[in-house]
Amino acid sequence: MKKPTFILLIIIFISSISFAQQKYALVIHGGAGNITTENVPPELAEQYKAKLTEALLTGEEVLKNGGTALDAVTATIMVMENCPLFNAGKGAVFTSEGTNEMDASIMDGRNLEAGAVAGVRTIKNPILAARAVMEQSPHVLLSGNGADRFAKEKGLQIVDPSYFFTQKRWDSYQRIKKQKEEADKHGTVGCVALDTHGNLAAGTSTGGMTWKMHGRIGDSPVIGAGTYADNNTCAVSCTGHGEYFIRYAVAYDISALMKYKGLTLQEAANEVIMKKLKQAGGDGGIIAIDKDGNTSMTFNTSGMFRGKISKGEKPEVFVF
Amino acid sequence: MKKPTFILLIIIFISSISFAQQKYALVIHGGAGNITTENVPPELAEQYKAKLTEALLTGEEVLKNGGTALDAVTATIMVMENCPLFNAGKGAVFTSEGTNEMDASIMDGRNLEAGAVAGVRTIKNPILAARAVMEQSPHVLLSGNGADRFAKEKGLQIVDPSYFFTQKRWDSYQRIKKQKEEADKHGTVGCVALDTHGNLAAGTSTGGMTWKMHGRIGDSPVIGAGTYADNNTCAVSCTGHGEYFIRYAVAYDISALMKYKGLTLQEAANEVIMKKLKQAGGDGGIIAIDKDGNTSMTFNTSGMFRGKISKGEKPEVFVF
Repeated sequence: MKKPTFILLIIIFISSISFAQQKYALVIHGGAGNITTENVPPELAEQYKAKLTEALLTGEEVLKNGGTALDAVTATIMVMENCPLFNAGKGAVFTSEGTNEMDASIMDGRNLEAGAVAGVRTIKNPILAARAVMEQSPHVLLSGNGADRFAKEKGLQIVDPSYFFTQKRWDSYQRIKKQKEEADKHGTVGCVALDTHGNLAAGTSTGGMTWKMHGRIGDSPVIGAGTYADNNTCAVSCTGHGEYFIRYAVAYDISALMKYKGLTLQEAANEVIMKKLKQAGGDGGIIAIDKDGNTSMTFNTSGMFRGKISKGEKPEVFVF
Repeated sequence: MKKPTFILLIIIFISSISFAQQKYALVIHGGAGNITTENVPPELAEQYKAKLTEALLTGEEVLKNGGTALDAVTATIMVMENCPLFNAGKGAVFTSEGTNEMDASIMDGRNLEAGAVAGVRTIKNPILAARAVMEQSPHVLLSGNGADRFAKEKGLQIVDPSYFFTQKRWDSYQRIKKQKEEADKHGTVGCVALDTHGNLAAGTSTGGMTWKMHGRIGDSPVIGAGTYADNNTCAVSCTGHGEYFIRYAVAYDISALMKYKGLTLQEAANEVIMKKLKQAGGDGGIIAIDKDGNTSMTFNTSGMFRGKISKGEKPEVFVF
């Protein structure tokens, strides 16, 4: 091979690496469950799709400007927390005592650092509190009043618990109170991202299950269950019947199947969601992204609010 | 082979299976950390050893009478929770606010059912509350007042928070308050067992870290982090710097390494505790038992209160 040809090949090789590193992608969910055309009529589905698109574009804005996966996940989840459509932040469901208790977690795949809050009642954006726990406390998981107080001390926006009142969730609470029905129980929002620096991050935020017992903690604030991110494997955020996701360590298990058994992201997601959880009776789904930008949106329920975006692609959003 | 010889061989084979199934074993820990001959003088070490032995014999009594691993784990942990020497139950350390907030969890390897409580203040035996969550609630993890109230409703023994005052822990709290020293921070109790029916179970109970923030939840009540049990692999209970154990999903990771990479129990324990955690700076240790009765007591600290017992063997206890 002549010298100039060799140098040209080197340059092409380096550019291709550099191009590869500039890939970014982001996936979101807004809860999985009994989501059918019957209980989500077209007009409502359009409202969800519009908000999911807004969330995706918000995250993309961070990523395309070279921002971190962590910042993209945070910004994206805040959009959904501020929207009453989703069971997180503003739209949180009610506990059996008629209060709102929210959980959230975030994890940085670069260094496996993580933060989470459980059972908070006054923090406008629980995902910011999770991040503050990660970055400004020696702990990973803070719960209850201690977490609310910590967030206040760190200057996060505190709201009166009445901020989280929405008529739709209250009606649903009243229905369940009367009939102990099973409907509309779950709901969570989550986001995973790969940034242009090759870092992964994952975050999850929820109001929990409608009619949950005071003090009940689901999988969302449990690192390894509802959220996991490791640059060597993948970033995962879960939604569904949280108790199953804790017992099966779902988010970490998908990472472990990739690392220890060499499964692809989609194979690992299928193994956990479509086999293990389905057999056990655990409803729900996950969104995930691996270090190469491959994504998965896998659920064993009738629907999952979800969407994805990546460099050079338009946002795609789905409900059923 | 003649017919009578063949039948004899069959009988021997069946008896050997039946004998194998009648194996039982139980392993306990009472916390890992800066445990040296300097800060644990001989007399104190003997006190610990005596109580560890009592705990082992209590668990063995259950197992040798054909009781379940779950019952053995529960009874064994109660002995340690009722003893002021260990940072769990009676001997729980103080939070930065001078209160006691305890965590506990339990998991049944037969069916992956699990229960846990976090930040409880009035339950004499948090391990019983964890078990009640598993057996008498639809949830896996309950925290704070909600958990205390649940335990009371279920008829568990409730005590005034002053029950958990011990002079030794209070002095330690006062020292840390003055000097913000690092000593005497951790401490947990745990138990894993294999019963004669071939079932595994694991349980963990703790007062958390001295000077922890109000509301801080460590790994002990987090299924997958501080506790895991699966009849197909192993049962694990952890002790140490809980934040690392959550981020590395330690208990579940040991199970995953056995299941997905075919490591032995000890290889898996070494990989997680002596490599991953040590490299990350996460102090602590684990006790574990696999479905064949192999045991592990692995720690990367100077000492871990620990012991084991199995069918036909005398109890063995260790401090350093």
